[in-house]
Amino acid sequence: MQEEDTTRVEAFSDGVFGIAMTLLILEIKVPHLPHEAPADKWWLFGALLSLWPSFIAFVLSFGTVLIMWVNHHGLFKHAHRTDNRLLFANGLLLLLVTFVPFPTAVLAEHLNKPSANAAATFYCATYVVIALCHNLLLSAVLANRAPGAVGSSAHEAAASRIRRAYGAGIAVYLAATIAAIFSPLGGLAICFSLWGLWVLLNYSAHERAS
Amino acid sequence: MQEEDTTRVEAFSDGVFGIAMTLLILEIKVPHLPHEAPADKWWLFGALLSLWPSFIAFVLSFGTVLIMWVNHHGLFKHAHRTDNRLLFANGLLLLLVTFVPFPTAVLAEHLNKPSANAAATFYCATYVVIALCHNLLLSAVLANRAPGAVGSSAHEAAASRIRRAYGAGIAVYLAATIAAIFSPLGGLAICFSLWGLWVLLNYSAHERAS
Amino acid sequence: MQEEDTTRVEAFSDGVFGIAMTLLILEIKVPHLPHEAPADKWWLFGALLSLWPSFIAFVLSFGTVLIMWVNHHGLFKHAHRTDNRLLFANGLLLLLVTFVPFPTAVLAEHLNKPSANAAATFYCATYVVIALCHNLLLSAVLANRAPGAVGSSAHEAAASRIRRAYGAGIAVYLAATIAAIFSPLGGLAICFSLWGLWVLLNYSAHERAS
Amino acid sequence: MQEEDTTRVEAFSDGVFGIAMTLLILEIKVPHLPHEAPADKWWLFGALLSLWPSFIAFVLSFGTVLIMWVNHHGLFKHAHRTDNRLLFANGLLLLLVTFVPFPTAVLAEHLNKPSANAAATFYCATYVVIALCHNLLLSAVLANRAPGAVGSSAHEAAASRIRRAYGAGIAVYLAATIAAIFSPLGGLAICFSLWGLWVLLNYSAHERAS
Repeated sequence: MQEEDTTRVEAFSDGVFGIAMTLLILEIKVPHLPHEAPADKWWLFGALLSLWPSFIAFVLSFGTVLIMWVNHHGLFKHAHRTDNRLLFANGLLLLLVTFVPFPTAVLAEHLNKPSANAAATFYCATYVVIALCHNLLLSAVLANRAPGAVGSSAHEAAASRIRRAYGAGIAVYLAATIAAIFSPLGGLAICFSLWGLWVLLNYSAHERAS
Repeated sequence: MQEEDTTRVEAFSDGVFGIAMTLLILEIKVPHLPHEAPADKWWLFGALLSLWPSFIAFVLSFGTVLIMWVNHHGLFKHAHRTDNRLLFANGLLLLLVTFVPFPTAVLAEHLNKPSANAAATFYCATYVVIALCHNLLLSAVLANRAPGAVGSSAHEAAASRIRRAYGAGIAVYLAATIAAIFSPLGGLAICFSLWGLWVLLNYSAHERAS
Repeated sequence: MQEEDTTRVEAFSDGVFGIAMTLLILEIKVPHLPHEAPADKWWLFGALLSLWPSFIAFVLSFGTVLIMWVNHHGLFKHAHRTDNRLLFANGLLLLLVTFVPFPTAVLAEHLNKPSANAAATFYCATYVVIALCHNLLLSAVLANRAPGAVGSSAHEAAASRIRRAYGAGIAVYLAATIAAIFSPLGGLAICFSLWGLWVLLNYSAHERAS
Repeated sequence: MQEEDTTRVEAFSDGVFGIAMTLLILEIKVPHLPHEAPADKWWLFGALLSLWPSFIAFVLSFGTVLIMWVNHHGLFKHAHRTDNRLLFANGLLLLLVTFVPFPTAVLAEHLNKPSANAAATFYCATYVVIALCHNLLLSAVLANRAPGAVGSSAHEAAASRIRRAYGAGIAVYLAATIAAIFSPLGGLAICFSLWGLWVLLNYSAHERAS
């Protein structure tokens, strides 16, 4: 029954991650033909290219939420059962994941406008809050480990590795937020660079766990 | 086969809960740069802050539906099989859960306007109807308990505890609706306060059931 | 492996049914405060009431798709394996289920306008096509029954009962379409009345099958 | 545990496929009654017919993503476990599947306008990229086969059959893209014609695998 509990929470979380990722596409707005038809038959390609802020925002948010999902997957492997603390830490994370399409749409709308610094700062700051929430979830998962796992050196090593990585996540997103105040694209570049870190982390954690 | 029946209804309900929660984000509208660009580069932060009705509506609805999902989870543990009465009581609940994004969007649009009282009253009244529907679902679940569970004192105690809590839910949401007629934020505060009650209920019910 | 096949198709179909039902809420548009604020503080209730075409369209479509889902559930109990014919008949049904939010939105927009007859006719005609498609799916399911089921009198009786019910579905939706040409609400009333028929059918089929 | 890994990735992918397919309906815009009510009571049918670009785009994209889902299903039967390469190749495919509603909406908006050639070229080019990504996923799946499957003549034959089909997919979508530069409907016709090829491929692969 405990096993089934974890399964249902994971399946529900997967659903929310998947829907949040898919809704991101709704923020890319179709360019409309202007009233006076442009002379150039291929005008549409220029209009599509000018949507680059939307494409950057879409790809960055999609990839980041996808990596969150992969990590969520890895994290719940350590959870042996669910209690209310785990359910609500997970719920808070899902609230924030569901929120991601909003800062993404704000970024897409403002990245090529004078308000770009404010939009990128808001966008990066959202991920700081999400990183903090991941740490809450980590504590809740560790408090729900299998009795045999607590104190086992292999599990403690895995736990401290994840803990260090999550701490690094907060630090890097904080740096991205501060960078975005001065340079929107600089802040976003730091967010993108985290993809590499997470892939590495997940890869090594996965290798050692299996 | 009966077991599988419950599983499929639960998985379907989880999907509807998850999608309804995720669609809530679509009601928060991205602020657009006014035609005459504001002098303040950080103008966007003020525009985001002025969206506070949307943020309150989003968080309140997300949390409430999430708690409904957790309770739905707990309730279906008591269902041993599904009959048509259970399927249709559950379907009515899903109809209302799916409806939640609409009063949420109405609240977000009107909470800082003269029409705030009407919007908050409509919002709270929706939850009265949902609470009534939860009671219908509870009866349907209790009618589908395992033969051994009926009459067992532990199960009867759990059932009457849930019944009391669901009755309290109706009463509190009714109070919130009446309060919202006079004070929109007062009504919403009562709705928020229910989170605490549900957490307590679920925690104690879970503890005793496991 | 064959069993798993059916499970994955059912889970995927459940997802599409659930999302289509949940997207229906997006067609109900939030009333906006007019530029000259109305004198009546409770003006919003009148504006919400004037959305009655949207509420009727939402409830009718939600209930109809929910009943389709329950029947889909019952139908797939007879499928022992999936072949390409079943996958594509099911895919065609999902295409049409996904389409339902569009005629629903058309109905919501036009039901209180001079174009109501055309909107209701289009809405009911959609269900005629869906009913035809259900018959395609039924044939595909019957062609994939367990070897033991073919020829067994109990299964043949169940199959012919479903066949008669699906035939009746086509006839009633055709009648609703013709009625809607003359009276939009008349056509919709016939659609609503089918709920009763399906409940009865499903109830008796379920009883006898279990 | 490895088995469960594949299951969760497949379930998550199914969710994303299903949501992307269902969101396609949001691109079909409800026709609004013009300010001066048209004399013809059945004016709405003409307005619906003039939405033919939206209907073509919806059906073509829905069917194509559905076939992708069926093939994804068939492809993952060969995966015995998941590693990070598989997770990220699959993630890239999901990014592109999620993207499909955007070129679909662009096509729907521009197919009956002078910008039709550009819209259809963009639409077909999206599928070229998706076909390339399917080849990446295929390599990742083949690298994760069960130890017994590698070198087995039956599995190698299945793998090379899929490889040939995926190669053909790239070629045909490339042809469709080039055709769309000169004739939008010509390019789309080639995309539609691929449905037949995929059905045949899947049918024969399924037959021989089972």
